[in-house]
Amino acid sequence: MSRVTCQISISVDGYAAGPDQTTENPLGEGGERLHERAIQTEGWRRSHGIEGGERNVDSEVAARMLEGVGAFVMGRKMFAGEGPWDESWRGWWGEDPPFHAPVYVLTHHPREPLEMEGGTTFHFVNDGLESALEQARAAAGEQDVAIAGGASTVNQALAAGALDELYLHVVPITLGAGERLFEGVGDVELEPVKVVSSPAVTHVRYRVRR
Amino acid sequence: MSRVTCQISISVDGYAAGPDQTTENPLGEGGERLHERAIQTEGWRRSHGIEGGERNVDSEVAARMLEGVGAFVMGRKMFAGEGPWDESWRGWWGEDPPFHAPVYVLTHHPREPLEMEGGTTFHFVNDGLESALEQARAAAGEQDVAIAGGASTVNQALAAGALDELYLHVVPITLGAGERLFEGVGDVELEPVKVVSSPAVTHVRYRVRR
Repeated sequence: MSRVTCQISISVDGYAAGPDQTTENPLGEGGERLHERAIQTEGWRRSHGIEGGERNVDSEVAARMLEGVGAFVMGRKMFAGEGPWDESWRGWWGEDPPFHAPVYVLTHHPREPLEMEGGTTFHFVNDGLESALEQARAAAGEQDVAIAGGASTVNQALAAGALDELYLHVVPITLGAGERLFEGVGDVELEPVKVVSSPAVTHVRYRVRR
Repeated sequence: MSRVTCQISISVDGYAAGPDQTTENPLGEGGERLHERAIQTEGWRRSHGIEGGERNVDSEVAARMLEGVGAFVMGRKMFAGEGPWDESWRGWWGEDPPFHAPVYVLTHHPREPLEMEGGTTFHFVNDGLESALEQARAAAGEQDVAIAGGASTVNQALAAGALDELYLHVVPITLGAGERLFEGVGDVELEPVKVVSSPAVTHVRYRVRR
């Protein structure tokens, strides 16, 4: 049955992005360090259409990151960053984004669906998270719906009790400031169902308790 | 060789104690939930001189919590809570505390050493963390020195680069507010060296990178 899942990288002090996020630096100061290990892996590179890379535990985790997902929900900032809304913007991922599925982008700006190569279509949803999740569920059928990020959208989903699974990739560095996962989510209880670790990242898969 | 270690329980959103810590409720609102699983285990109970308890992964971790430690360093609040300094206070742990070793308590109040049963002696250190660590190292010999808590003392040790190992017991609940681990520690890099998980707690042992 279709579940709502989320995978997100955070620092050991709980930040999913560093401070001072800008259009030029959407992950904020130091935020790229949360992803530098993943993007060196063969698994991540393959799922993004790039050859080569390291084969290790982190690679296996990265390779399966988009598996079994039939539709995505994404915050406005993750699609377009902080700046003014630009109608011609086509996302950060090039013409063949790694999603290969419909992606529902939360934004106040109406826009026609944007069909990319390889099965990814960005749909722009103007009436909130619940509506985006409903549309994503309908599109995903038996497959999962994944909240692609960023942290504020994941927090919104946690606060709404909409998440079934949260898969944290805990990077053992401190960022000290920025966008915090779990900020304002209220009382959440999780259950760890699987944990694997490399010397670089601890991957903890949690079921969200209702 | 003697190392400086620390074991501490935190919520998934990074708090080692809940909000509104008082003398009556030293762990703050909800903070006791960080420890409720541990204190049900056979391992924890045995190390605190109590019979019975559950045998599971968490129990094995709890049983080894005080192993190999030759001396402890502890913050004032962990020894005596938030209230005014009370010369007759003998700690929360009864006449035979579970430390069975010297414990160096950081406080601005001078006080004679307090010898308890079972090998625990509380020494009151008035000239700061570095001095406490030095005394603890001398007392521990080849054994480890453990920072017993609370979070602000652990953060002070992290900020000073004094910790060699940090063993986090991550309890999968949110507290939303309170005393945060990693607050103000600056740039810290860790390396996960061992991870074990139960359905209740994820235990991650980190080496602190220099």
